[in-house]
Amino acid sequence: MMKIAVDAMGGDNAPQVIVEGIEKARDEWTDLEFVLYGDETKIKEYLKDDKRIKIVNTDEEILGTDEPVKAIRSKKNSSMVLAAKSVKNKEADAMLSLGNTGALLAAGIFIVGRIKQVSRPALMPTLPVTNSSLGVNVLDVGANAEAKATYLQQWAIMGSIYAHDIKQIEEPRVALLNNGTESDKGDPLHKEAYDLLKNTEGINFIGNVESNDILAGVADVIVTDGFTGNAALKATEGTATILLSQLKNALLNNGFFTKMGAAIVAPSLKSLKDMFDTSKAGGAVLLGLKSPVVKAHGAADAKTVFYTVKQIYGMLLNDTINKSNKYFEQMEEKK
Amino acid sequence: MMKIAVDAMGGDNAPQVIVEGIEKARDEWTDLEFVLYGDETKIKEYLKDDKRIKIVNTDEEILGTDEPVKAIRSKKNSSMVLAAKSVKNKEADAMLSLGNTGALLAAGIFIVGRIKQVSRPALMPTLPVTNSSLGVNVLDVGANAEAKATYLQQWAIMGSIYAHDIKQIEEPRVALLNNGTESDKGDPLHKEAYDLLKNTEGINFIGNVESNDILAGVADVIVTDGFTGNAALKATEGTATILLSQLKNALLNNGFFTKMGAAIVAPSLKSLKDMFDTSKAGGAVLLGLKSPVVKAHGAADAKTVFYTVKQIYGMLLNDTINKSNKYFEQMEEKK
Repeated sequence: MMKIAVDAMGGDNAPQVIVEGIEKARDEWTDLEFVLYGDETKIKEYLKDDKRIKIVNTDEEILGTDEPVKAIRSKKNSSMVLAAKSVKNKEADAMLSLGNTGALLAAGIFIVGRIKQVSRPALMPTLPVTNSSLGVNVLDVGANAEAKATYLQQWAIMGSIYAHDIKQIEEPRVALLNNGTESDKGDPLHKEAYDLLKNTEGINFIGNVESNDILAGVADVIVTDGFTGNAALKATEGTATILLSQLKNALLNNGFFTKMGAAIVAPSLKSLKDMFDTSKAGGAVLLGLKSPVVKAHGAADAKTVFYTVKQIYGMLLNDTINKSNKYFEQMEEKK
Repeated sequence: MMKIAVDAMGGDNAPQVIVEGIEKARDEWTDLEFVLYGDETKIKEYLKDDKRIKIVNTDEEILGTDEPVKAIRSKKNSSMVLAAKSVKNKEADAMLSLGNTGALLAAGIFIVGRIKQVSRPALMPTLPVTNSSLGVNVLDVGANAEAKATYLQQWAIMGSIYAHDIKQIEEPRVALLNNGTESDKGDPLHKEAYDLLKNTEGINFIGNVESNDILAGVADVIVTDGFTGNAALKATEGTATILLSQLKNALLNNGFFTKMGAAIVAPSLKSLKDMFDTSKAGGAVLLGLKSPVVKAHGAADAKTVFYTVKQIYGMLLNDTINKSNKYFEQMEEKK
């Protein structure tokens, strides 16, 4: 039996979508049990069956607007902090939250704790790609404002093991996000990272990619410093959001005939929306911690919560975290 | 009479679209004359009237695949190098090219030459925004892989003067691209840049923006280091390209009824395409040089060439370059 600690109060639609998603996951995987941290009264409003689901009542909540590190330190009885503590104390094997990303990073690093050989944990979402449903894992997208080449090397290894275990890709293609595809591109950090990655055993490094190719499916894992990764991710999200909203506007606010045409093309446009739907990939993983800590989108629905449990379940079954550990230990020994 | 040196051989549709765009511009502004550098035979195929248009025959061409600095040094008789030299020698007041961006940067820096007080020239395109036809100027998007806070300050000043002169915005809103909107966000470079910008006289600094807001029209000028700017720009372009191509696919490859619906919604979708059409803004300016050097997109059409001339004309009429010069000289004196 494996146990997942759930921050039931994070996100826009908590605790409803969380309770619904967790119940569905509980019915699907019989060797999983859950502890929901949150407002017991509210949780019970939605919980139909408490089989393998325990509730720990909490009366504090970390808000999306809270300053992350301060929130973790001052709101010691919040659902997020208590869930993280249960992982630290080995009462749970992994943690799931839809809450404040910065606070979850802080909870992961300061409470759950990082793997000794990983200098800096990285945040890794799965982005959609045009040619595969497996998407691309990008790390780091913002857990760290500064990076060293050795961090990027560690992230490449962890991302590659993840893509192997969870996306079941035999030899995941690992690329470096850079300002050109040629091998000599980049600032000193990215040049050094390129050389390190080229000489890293056990990963399939395919060279540099530029950010206009992130969604084109040219790699399975893309490593980047957190500052650039954050900018590329947000530019991608911002452009997609603006374009899709302008598309909706164009179709619905241009009179009767356009609306009629829109109704005709709607089923086909759904495929466009589906391409950008990565809910089946689960959430963003904070890699480099002693246990899986996964952040689902604040606007996630029950389906996404379900798939995020699936993702965590896969990491637990495959012992993905410990594989990274072992790799890093072997690296140390070789030195 | 002002003279613009034109590299007539750069870009995907050279020299046709260049000749057509230049002729249109020549008819529009009677105080402009042009020197077209390129294959005289090919240029003459398209040139209808040589009034105020001189041709200088060249037999070398810098290709899109050429290594920039090497190309500039070895292809001394190329249309791009000769056009740049004519600006350096004051035979022309400005330069326009649709060719290899890296090579044009090198030609601008090594041949035309930079303003003494500008440490590093920056490449500045105009990106579309949802709420204004004026778009947003972003710099640097890739002329420099590395940056210092003082560079960003210089770029902010030049970008602001440009937005004032060419977009006719009284007090252009200048923002810093960062990994969060709060004033304490960023790595050391961006924190230092924030403090510098906050205390820079003569610009209207409005704080940090994140890259998901670039297209939202929250600022008139956004400054960023070239590595991050490059990643954000390419992620924006890549996402827009992929989404629009998937949209086209969805509408045209889903059977007869969808195609019929697509025909109905087509006029409305044009507004979507128009939003992302920045051809009226001209090309990307290499700011920080002694004379205007502007790069239009390799796939630009005659209309874009025309508007790029308009953009250069505006910079010449307003003496935009010298305004930056004067600003920097006054800054020096105050020290």
